Amino acid sequence: MTGNILGERFIVISFGESHGKCIGTIVEGCPAGLRISEQDIQKELDKRKPGISEIYSSRKEEDKVEILSGVFNGFTTGAPICMIIWNKYFDSKLYEEYRNKPRPGHADYTAYIKYGGFNDWRGGGRFSGRITASFIMAGAIAKKLLNETLGIKIYAYVIEIGGIKAKIEYTEKLEELTYSNDVRCPDYDAANKMKEKIISIMKNGDSIGGIIECLIKNVPVGLGEPVFSSLESDISKAIFSIPAVKGIEFGAGFNVSKMLGSESNDAFIIKNGKILTEKNNSGGILGGISNGMPIIFRIAIKPTPSISKPQKTIDLSNFKETIISIKGMHDPCIVPRAVPIVENIVACVLADHAIRYNLIPPVIKKEK
Amino acid sequence: MTGNILGERFIVISFGESHGKCIGTIVEGCPAGLRISEQDIQKELDKRKPGISEIYSSRKEEDKVEILSGVFNGFTTGAPICMIIWNKYFDSKLYEEYRNKPRPGHADYTAYIKYGGFNDWRGGGRFSGRITASFIMAGAIAKKLLNETLGIKIYAYVIEIGGIKAKIEYTEKLEELTYSNDVRCPDYDAANKMKEKIISIMKNGDSIGGIIECLIKNVPVGLGEPVFSSLESDISKAIFSIPAVKGIEFGAGFNVSKMLGSESNDAFIIKNGKILTEKNNSGGILGGISNGMPIIFRIAIKPTPSISKPQKTIDLSNFKETIISIKGMHDPCIVPRAVPIVENIVACVLADHAIRYNLIPPVIKKEK
Amino acid sequence: MTGNILGERFIVISFGESHGKCIGTIVEGCPAGLRISEQDIQKELDKRKPGISEIYSSRKEEDKVEILSGVFNGFTTGAPICMIIWNKYFDSKLYEEYRNKPRPGHADYTAYIKYGGFNDWRGGGRFSGRITASFIMAGAIAKKLLNETLGIKIYAYVIEIGGIKAKIEYTEKLEELTYSNDVRCPDYDAANKMKEKIISIMKNGDSIGGIIECLIKNVPVGLGEPVFSSLESDISKAIFSIPAVKGIEFGAGFNVSKMLGSESNDAFIIKNGKILTEKNNSGGILGGISNGMPIIFRIAIKPTPSISKPQKTIDLSNFKETIISIKGMHDPCIVPRAVPIVENIVACVLADHAIRYNLIPPVIKKEK
Amino acid sequence: MTGNILGERFIVISFGESHGKCIGTIVEGCPAGLRISEQDIQKELDKRKPGISEIYSSRKEEDKVEILSGVFNGFTTGAPICMIIWNKYFDSKLYEEYRNKPRPGHADYTAYIKYGGFNDWRGGGRFSGRITASFIMAGAIAKKLLNETLGIKIYAYVIEIGGIKAKIEYTEKLEELTYSNDVRCPDYDAANKMKEKIISIMKNGDSIGGIIECLIKNVPVGLGEPVFSSLESDISKAIFSIPAVKGIEFGAGFNVSKMLGSESNDAFIIKNGKILTEKNNSGGILGGISNGMPIIFRIAIKPTPSISKPQKTIDLSNFKETIISIKGMHDPCIVPRAVPIVENIVACVLADHAIRYNLIPPVIKKEK
Repeated sequence: MTGNILGERFIVISFGESHGKCIGTIVEGCPAGLRISEQDIQKELDKRKPGISEIYSSRKEEDKVEILSGVFNGFTTGAPICMIIWNKYFDSKLYEEYRNKPRPGHADYTAYIKYGGFNDWRGGGRFSGRITASFIMAGAIAKKLLNETLGIKIYAYVIEIGGIKAKIEYTEKLEELTYSNDVRCPDYDAANKMKEKIISIMKNGDSIGGIIECLIKNVPVGLGEPVFSSLESDISKAIFSIPAVKGIEFGAGFNVSKMLGSESNDAFIIKNGKILTEKNNSGGILGGISNGMPIIFRIAIKPTPSISKPQKTIDLSNFKETIISIKGMHDPCIVPRAVPIVENIVACVLADHAIRYNLIPPVIKKEK
Repeated sequence: MTGNILGERFIVISFGESHGKCIGTIVEGCPAGLRISEQDIQKELDKRKPGISEIYSSRKEEDKVEILSGVFNGFTTGAPICMIIWNKYFDSKLYEEYRNKPRPGHADYTAYIKYGGFNDWRGGGRFSGRITASFIMAGAIAKKLLNETLGIKIYAYVIEIGGIKAKIEYTEKLEELTYSNDVRCPDYDAANKMKEKIISIMKNGDSIGGIIECLIKNVPVGLGEPVFSSLESDISKAIFSIPAVKGIEFGAGFNVSKMLGSESNDAFIIKNGKILTEKNNSGGILGGISNGMPIIFRIAIKPTPSISKPQKTIDLSNFKETIISIKGMHDPCIVPRAVPIVENIVACVLADHAIRYNLIPPVIKKEK
Repeated sequence: MTGNILGERFIVISFGESHGKCIGTIVEGCPAGLRISEQDIQKELDKRKPGISEIYSSRKEEDKVEILSGVFNGFTTGAPICMIIWNKYFDSKLYEEYRNKPRPGHADYTAYIKYGGFNDWRGGGRFSGRITASFIMAGAIAKKLLNETLGIKIYAYVIEIGGIKAKIEYTEKLEELTYSNDVRCPDYDAANKMKEKIISIMKNGDSIGGIIECLIKNVPVGLGEPVFSSLESDISKAIFSIPAVKGIEFGAGFNVSKMLGSESNDAFIIKNGKILTEKNNSGGILGGISNGMPIIFRIAIKPTPSISKPQKTIDLSNFKETIISIKGMHDPCIVPRAVPIVENIVACVLADHAIRYNLIPPVIKKEK
Repeated sequence: MTGNILGERFIVISFGESHGKCIGTIVEGCPAGLRISEQDIQKELDKRKPGISEIYSSRKEEDKVEILSGVFNGFTTGAPICMIIWNKYFDSKLYEEYRNKPRPGHADYTAYIKYGGFNDWRGGGRFSGRITASFIMAGAIAKKLLNETLGIKIYAYVIEIGGIKAKIEYTEKLEELTYSNDVRCPDYDAANKMKEKIISIMKNGDSIGGIIECLIKNVPVGLGEPVFSSLESDISKAIFSIPAVKGIEFGAGFNVSKMLGSESNDAFIIKNGKILTEKNNSGGILGGISNGMPIIFRIAIKPTPSISKPQKTIDLSNFKETIISIKGMHDPCIVPRAVPIVENIVACVLADHAIRYNLIPPVIKKEK
């Protein structure tokens, strides 16, 4: 019953429902003395805002963050930071039909059984993609903390949608390129093709899946607590909390199954006075601990389950098979909107490990 | 610093080093009244024992389990169950060469930096594959607990090694077929080809990776605590604690990136009076909660990093590049030996969630 | 940095500051299906409201609870329940003087050092007695949960203030008598004397301490997880989170130091077909586990540190000794207002243990 | 079901039973690079060894510690440290009589109910005072860690037994005086009277209780995580894990109930360039955080429940009242033997908080 808490030192507590009063987060354990404002958090939130593109859900929400506690005079105080966005524009009536007809691919059925029918089913309730706004609010703090204390930079971007693969150039412009198009893919040619495909699938009442890659630079050696809190363990745990994720792979990933040890092993070399590895098949993590190379991983996102095409389901009120067709405007492809979520939830994991390994002190800097 | 503890209710604590006195586990939180014997645990341990095949490491260890606490008159008491196997036959001298020359693909370098050189480097110490014996001891209890209280059955098996794919038939004989050959692959034709390939690569001083699939039957609806303790989150966290795992995917996994929503969604149907899904692309988990269908996932295992072929590395004593060639007999392919580890660590996760969801009571049955 | 979270299954997360936007709580892990309303919570909150008596702090606050999440159609959903009260009427100017002059007996100095001066010092910030409102909001849910599922009843009351001792009669009217006077002492003669004493001390610019007793009835046998989560361990941990508590004793308490074993031991007897103990020196807890007898404990509360009498302190801005005199209206005796706090925070501990021991299921009752 | 784990960063896991194979501890989270030997641990263990005085239990046990993991070349490695003492000389037959006749004042009855009769009842099993040996093994490491990194010193000593009060002089010789007599009381006159009283009570088949004080010097400002992990909260939680403790008070303790605020408040002063408090009624803790003054607290220990005098109890086999007389040689007064237990378990709590507050780094010193 305690799935809403993540982390040991930098702790994220998520609350709120899609059609309830608000979506909120508490960050517990953030060091005191980090300069933070609602603008810092808003900047990240705006990246996943609905309604900003024709290929996004058309729900109109301002998603304006309000900090309720833990920040004073522009700095974190060391106390729990509670942040919320208010839900304003939603229509729950649409969902009454689904109440007894679980939508395939959604959590309707499992939530109904697990919570004995008491769960808030409006808009998917606690299982809506909208709850990832709480990951972003926490992550915005984590990102700033990591960047200001350790110089860590986190980039996520779409590398594949519906079979269309992007060609990624690992340049300084990665972030800029990613966020300057609504597919969140830094390869513009691929991005255009992806968008076309999404639109055509959307028109057909269907949806499509894809793959996101995440690259993290300037990670110090030593993050990750083996055995069970290895960096891969804790990153994957957080990533699978994003709805619709069905797979994760680090470095060479599933390709290792075809590799020889002599291909897979990353030789150690010295470059500019630093110990590096020649390749990075390990994805920056060895024995569960960061090795100073960029951390790199990829995640598979399934197609949005909400489609207007008719689907078979069950009517729980009479225990009979029936047909459902999901109304309303849903993202035809959730992949682009998941990009900032990946960045921010991973930031929370890294902040947690950085504090666990004493790389970030309890007070960022003394007051003058 | 707390990576050696897994779980919230069925808690596994792993300890011991490859060339220390012993490898051990504590299970904390096992309900009282489960009939358990050293034989029950030995049966699982024997599945990963070294030295039982020409394609396994030739280290001779009896790996005989000793229960130190928590079991009385043949039943668990509700107190912590400590189990150990003693390390007997090892030669640490071989490893002195690697002390300052981190082996590529191993944790030598990251452990050296993280623990300031104080880590036990003999045989990989705490990062040796041998520590997975502690997962098995705990898992043996979890497996029995799950089976006796809920009828849950867990099967893992090799589905691919070095590009050779097996054809799996999901019959009752899956477990028997898996464990009757030393490649742990239920498809005998594929198993023979895999073994040939492993032996030829071994002769060449190299190693090879592969893929394991895990299938779990009779899982009740409702296991998994969303958001951050979703069943996928907690299974992946545990799986990435197995050395050499680089990827995991549930159900349709990475293939969802090419699917339409209408293909990916599993329609609900009624069969024999039970609610099922027509397909199982979700891998038995919806919204982080088990939906009553078989849980199915696949994991990628990298080639054993210990190869006799010369590799580039660094001499940490003089900070210069150097060459290393790993001596001794190592598993040329770790994949088969990881099969029982997957089964047993996943059992621990499921036992934890079953207790969290009150499906297993604090006392299995009252004493007569 | 994680002091704001209590419990393992019924988890309380406290947030907010005395002069910030709000005081809030999240309850994570409350079973689904408990009927709960803002009125249920308000009833408990009103018991500690400031300004309702001449011997209470005169801060005017409505303290009206708002449930932000986790309750739907009048029932808990199994999701995190976030509750807040908004801070409305406060004047932080008064506190500017104390910013550099730590008030003796308060957390000003230790908080300043620990948080590097970044802590919110207004009104004591996170260390104000006002944060106990968050305990009450959580406790209101716990109390209702315990009462409706197990019939547990929790009573706290003042038994001593400034040396004046009450005579307690353990009747059915205990709660009614306690809350019908503003000293929260069920012995009316003593209550009158206590009130007189408090008023005379208040006029003299001073404050006074006292003792609260807590009695818990209908506790089933078996609550408490030895060794480190014994019921005494977890109750005392929670109780010492109430500001101003300096001691706790269970059953015969400190008197055991003068007792013989033959006096101290509680003989087992059978009464009305039930196993009881003849006396209750153990306070209802044996080996850290509830034994079915009423749980009884007493706690010592120090005098309110805020007094108008001049006191020596340090000016942190110039590191010199100085004199401080606390202005404003503070409770001259915090003891009466701590009574509902004790009841409610103990309810959280018992709810946590009842869920850990499976006495309360994940869903209270199935929806019809 | 998880009562055997204490702490968040310096984590103690206790296991073993009185008449099982061994008593053991794991310390998880101890920084790497602490020089530690079995002798260091033995020194602390010897302080609570049975059989070393006529007023101690006559059970003959060598209690020789064996380190099973986590220490390499004389230093901690950062891996879990498992330590055990083997049980050798015990006679369980004596206890068969009590199996169905719960001993008053013991956990026999509550354990029987909670664990459905599956608990190991021999010698009290998991509820025996003997399990405190596991606290000492962990504490020996914590003590050394605290002393070598922060200079912290912990003293416990008897201040009252059966109404005889000691006069404590807070000199440098406190530890020496305490451990040079078997009553563990630094006031020799009082110690002699206490011993006489204990012997006379013992001859009478009875037992007696007392009070222990604990004084901790050189604690830095800032330990303790408010609200729920205040230093008082976490110390009291650990202390109540010691069997027979029925009360704890910090600083002025229960006397605050009679004090005025002007008496109770500790004025801040400057002495030798340091900020101190004039008195120490707070016991070194303000707002749950250490204030740099000595931490001081007192705990009440009940008389040993095992007495040879006949007592009423229940025969669980036929649900009838009966009489029991405890045979064998038991400590007539457990108070002296609890002294080192208090010191060592408190050390674990302080080590945990020191690591949480980053005062102790993950590696004590780099290897040369």
